[in-house]
Amino acid sequence: MSAFDLDGYLKERRVLVDAALDRLLPPEQTPPPTVHRAMRYSVLAGGKRLRPILVIAGAEAVGGAAQTVMPTACALELIHTYSLIHDDLPAMDNDDYRRGRLTNHKVFGDAMAILAGDALLTLAFRLIAENAALVKDPRVIRDVVAEIADAAGTGGMVGGQVVDIESEGQAVTAETLEYIHIHKTAALIRGSLRAGVRLAGGDGAAVAAISDAGQSLGLAFQIVDDILDVEGSLEVLGKTAGSDERKQKATYPALHGIEASRREARRLIEETKSRLAVFGGRSAPLCALADYVVERKS
Amino acid sequence: MSAFDLDGYLKERRVLVDAALDRLLPPEQTPPPTVHRAMRYSVLAGGKRLRPILVIAGAEAVGGAAQTVMPTACALELIHTYSLIHDDLPAMDNDDYRRGRLTNHKVFGDAMAILAGDALLTLAFRLIAENAALVKDPRVIRDVVAEIADAAGTGGMVGGQVVDIESEGQAVTAETLEYIHIHKTAALIRGSLRAGVRLAGGDGAAVAAISDAGQSLGLAFQIVDDILDVEGSLEVLGKTAGSDERKQKATYPALHGIEASRREARRLIEETKSRLAVFGGRSAPLCALADYVVERKS
Repeated sequence: MSAFDLDGYLKERRVLVDAALDRLLPPEQTPPPTVHRAMRYSVLAGGKRLRPILVIAGAEAVGGAAQTVMPTACALELIHTYSLIHDDLPAMDNDDYRRGRLTNHKVFGDAMAILAGDALLTLAFRLIAENAALVKDPRVIRDVVAEIADAAGTGGMVGGQVVDIESEGQAVTAETLEYIHIHKTAALIRGSLRAGVRLAGGDGAAVAAISDAGQSLGLAFQIVDDILDVEGSLEVLGKTAGSDERKQKATYPALHGIEASRREARRLIEETKSRLAVFGGRSAPLCALADYVVERKS
Repeated sequence: MSAFDLDGYLKERRVLVDAALDRLLPPEQTPPPTVHRAMRYSVLAGGKRLRPILVIAGAEAVGGAAQTVMPTACALELIHTYSLIHDDLPAMDNDDYRRGRLTNHKVFGDAMAILAGDALLTLAFRLIAENAALVKDPRVIRDVVAEIADAAGTGGMVGGQVVDIESEGQAVTAETLEYIHIHKTAALIRGSLRAGVRLAGGDGAAVAAISDAGQSLGLAFQIVDDILDVEGSLEVLGKTAGSDERKQKATYPALHGIEASRREARRLIEETKSRLAVFGGRSAPLCALADYVVERKS
């Protein structure tokens, strides 16, 4: 397992995902150009492409190929990006920088940023529908649309963001913080893995196993994000470090301390890997990715 | 045709749609409650339910029944409502009243209004996926998801809103105004009709015919909306009359005059009805609805 070349794996898939995103987003010159420029500005700003790669790795865990899930992989990146654009708005977190460059509304204005986010969310479902042409059983598309909508809606990502915003400046319990993390971050990470497994024809047991793994992986990812926000710098993170504290956001280290946070992240990653064991050697990329999630510096 | 009881038809379907919306929206007490309150506040504020009724009438035009397209009918209302919530934001049109009551952000704040809109758009696609259980051929769901995404995205509603916002305070050509109207309003009206016909098993010819009818109906609807904004009052419209002029919005009457606008709306409605002729008696509700669109006072 330790011999797995994660760097090579990630690079290869990032190239595929970036090319697909560029192909699937409307060109800048397509009318009306401003909104397409705004959409491409944020989506093509780089980033880890974690969610698309999880869709691909989920498919691979049950013997599927990257190209057969690519539209859905891109859809997950569009949903992630729309949530960042809306979160960064002055009415929400009011952030000026993201991935090392000005946030969408700082460049295109608040109205266009709202519309670009709306358009990315809409296009995401269009892409999932397109994925029907690449799978053995197109009926699975209905399940993927429903599940991704659940993961992105008030029972998932949006729900987490709502509680996050309502908790700013408040004393937050450990339970509320876990609610925020599980909904705001873990739901879409879990949804990405589930979508990949479903599209590649995985059975109910495979979907259940990947779900559990996605839940612990997603929670670990957000805890490490919180730690990095405390410890990181603008150069490494591409966003202003310490911004959670300034905005009086509840974070895992603020509530439990840095050391306990690190321990919990490591425990969750071990749990993730044991939940991936049923997939055998095909989950080697996901296991390596899980290790990377706690060891990463940005 | 003139004997058709449109009032009775609309009332009956509105009751069905309102009940389905109430059932399909998460209850207020479901966590997190604030966003569900915000979603329900705007969706259940009344309104004509034009788009859901068009989905139903589209299905009926090819022999389908209202209950078999109800989740998608509701989805179209959620998409329409999300677009109103986001349009009303201070960063966009900055409106305080809608349907006779305070706009969403005036009650729940800008952040919650953005998130409630996002959640409604997301839930809309969830509902279309659910519609699979009610149709003969569930593969049609994929087409409906793709088409509604196109109608609501930058090639449709969002695209129209982008050009509308960019045109404020500018001298606008007749071509640009038509672009705005066709994209911002007609696209979703056309999409509603297409979805109804598709879900009820209509063939390619039926989809094409309803598309053409939807295009002219949608354009007529927006022209009449423009006329009402000039002539109407707060009591009748439920929103501030003359707001287009105050916001320096391009409108059909401003560009062509009231009389020419009325003539064009009437011409488009005749066109709509002739395009509906292929459906025979089954399109009686749609023909009556078309007449109502130009005659309505709100």
